[in-house]
Amino acid sequence: MSEFDLIRRYFMQAAKGADSTRHPAGVELGIGDDCALLRVASGSELAVSTDMLVEGRHFPVGADPFKLGHKSLAVNLSDMAAMGAAPRWVTLALALPHVDEAWLERFSAGLFALASRFEVALVGGDTTRGPLTISVTIMGEVPAGLALYRAGAQPGDEIWVSGELGGAALGLAHEQGRVSLEGAAKQAMLRRLHEPEPRVALGERLRGLATSAIDVSDGFAGDLAHILERSAVGALVHYDRLPRPSAFVKLANARMEEECVLSGGDDYELVFTAPQASGSEIRALVDDLGIALTPVGYVQRGEAKLVLLDAKGASMRDRGGFDHFRPDPG
Amino acid sequence: MSEFDLIRRYFMQAAKGADSTRHPAGVELGIGDDCALLRVASGSELAVSTDMLVEGRHFPVGADPFKLGHKSLAVNLSDMAAMGAAPRWVTLALALPHVDEAWLERFSAGLFALASRFEVALVGGDTTRGPLTISVTIMGEVPAGLALYRAGAQPGDEIWVSGELGGAALGLAHEQGRVSLEGAAKQAMLRRLHEPEPRVALGERLRGLATSAIDVSDGFAGDLAHILERSAVGALVHYDRLPRPSAFVKLANARMEEECVLSGGDDYELVFTAPQASGSEIRALVDDLGIALTPVGYVQRGEAKLVLLDAKGASMRDRGGFDHFRPDPG
Repeated sequence: MSEFDLIRRYFMQAAKGADSTRHPAGVELGIGDDCALLRVASGSELAVSTDMLVEGRHFPVGADPFKLGHKSLAVNLSDMAAMGAAPRWVTLALALPHVDEAWLERFSAGLFALASRFEVALVGGDTTRGPLTISVTIMGEVPAGLALYRAGAQPGDEIWVSGELGGAALGLAHEQGRVSLEGAAKQAMLRRLHEPEPRVALGERLRGLATSAIDVSDGFAGDLAHILERSAVGALVHYDRLPRPSAFVKLANARMEEECVLSGGDDYELVFTAPQASGSEIRALVDDLGIALTPVGYVQRGEAKLVLLDAKGASMRDRGGFDHFRPDPG
Repeated sequence: MSEFDLIRRYFMQAAKGADSTRHPAGVELGIGDDCALLRVASGSELAVSTDMLVEGRHFPVGADPFKLGHKSLAVNLSDMAAMGAAPRWVTLALALPHVDEAWLERFSAGLFALASRFEVALVGGDTTRGPLTISVTIMGEVPAGLALYRAGAQPGDEIWVSGELGGAALGLAHEQGRVSLEGAAKQAMLRRLHEPEPRVALGERLRGLATSAIDVSDGFAGDLAHILERSAVGALVHYDRLPRPSAFVKLANARMEEECVLSGGDDYELVFTAPQASGSEIRALVDDLGIALTPVGYVQRGEAKLVLLDAKGASMRDRGGFDHFRPDPG
């Protein structure tokens, strides 16, 4: 039996161990055969998303494997949240340059800790020798017809943002030495960068309330632009209403703050639109879920363009998709 | 818009183009949102499998991208076949060192040509910069309770093999310069290595007939060993009954022939067990499907061990899992 056969067996047992806390929902057959066999609840659609993370591109060489395990799953859970789907099952394809048991122990601990919190079962995968590459495919369920599309935003809808924007980008700027954070602010921003909290519960509660939704992976302006394009509408957003960490106040760097808040990726907050009449129902979710939800502007008729207003209500220059700010999201 | 955004758009359009020949079954929402949305037929279970192929490990640097597109999907279709599942949808995670439009054109042509033949829709994916790595996740449907497990082989069952064994390994030996093939034989063996034909139709027809099944990806002996372990049974196989290409006759290299036939991977034929009473029904599939199906031995009570008999009916030495032959299947 090869080293990589042993790794497969390791993940198989770790998966069964993680699942043993409860019988994983809908798993007829888990890891270890030619395929996994799953039962999708009748009346539900299957939601599927896949991501690939490459060392040196999506995370630095030598990144903490526990946090890497967390983030590899978190980015996929965030796609479920943006669709209003309940995450159920994941497969993991993993290329490793060599067999490092300590690394595998920490990586799987980070992945299974998050999987267990969201009752997601690892049902299959592949492990091979190669440059460190992680590909997770996530599957979930959403009642037929209730998924949150990017298309669907209507003129007059309010635009909402969960949590705060720009924190992960500020943490990255700190790691890159472009700013220097300290104490609690530093810890908080680095946590947002390396251990994002997917808004799964919020996504499920927004079914039937939101007219469109997306998660902030490439930056608020760029991701909102996807909603505008798909919905064939414009948007008017008040820059100063965009929720952001208080760390920016101390930073006192307007240019960097604007870059992080408008174009910083990796926050994995939800941006969604909803009729103004739903405002009170959405505000009620703040207490239920303990997540800040902030109205930041309105959907407008017309071309798929984002108009940003400054504190004085004057139009800031057109930001379009912010490609001049955005890093290659690949 | 980044290069990799353009690639995503390219695959999105290619996928829509490939699907436009028919409305892809069960696709409520395809590529382009946070998730795909799929409808699994009621009464069916969802079968899922994932593979990861790394350049320099699973295929050589400079491999023909068309054949690579074919094989990336074929190995996953073969997992569906081994489960008796009908393939429906795939996601593709692709890391590329740089954007090479000619390569992408050929790779996607190879992938979509096979996808179209099996009416499989590309419903999502991710594309990023990195060492050439291909990860396909396939999803399919199988009527509840009819999937073909590795466990389930019963003492007295016949052991069957589809097609021929060892052809892909012989093609690899040729490419490695260990043997020299010519003409039609060379073309045929290289085709088995680079463009395997997944036995999807056979897998579906074996529902309710076969008691266990697996596809030959690591080699007949090693893959049959998985069935024996899961089913807690032994097996007696007549080596000379194992179907193999006539090219081996001309080769006249008993040692290499044995290695290719017993331990050669990448044939993607099906090995399955069935009650002797089902023999006539199974033989009927040969004409229906135009695939050779050969009984090669019997399942036996006792420890999960493969006993091989030579032409004289004498026991060849115990082969166990053939790890001493098998390359690291990772």
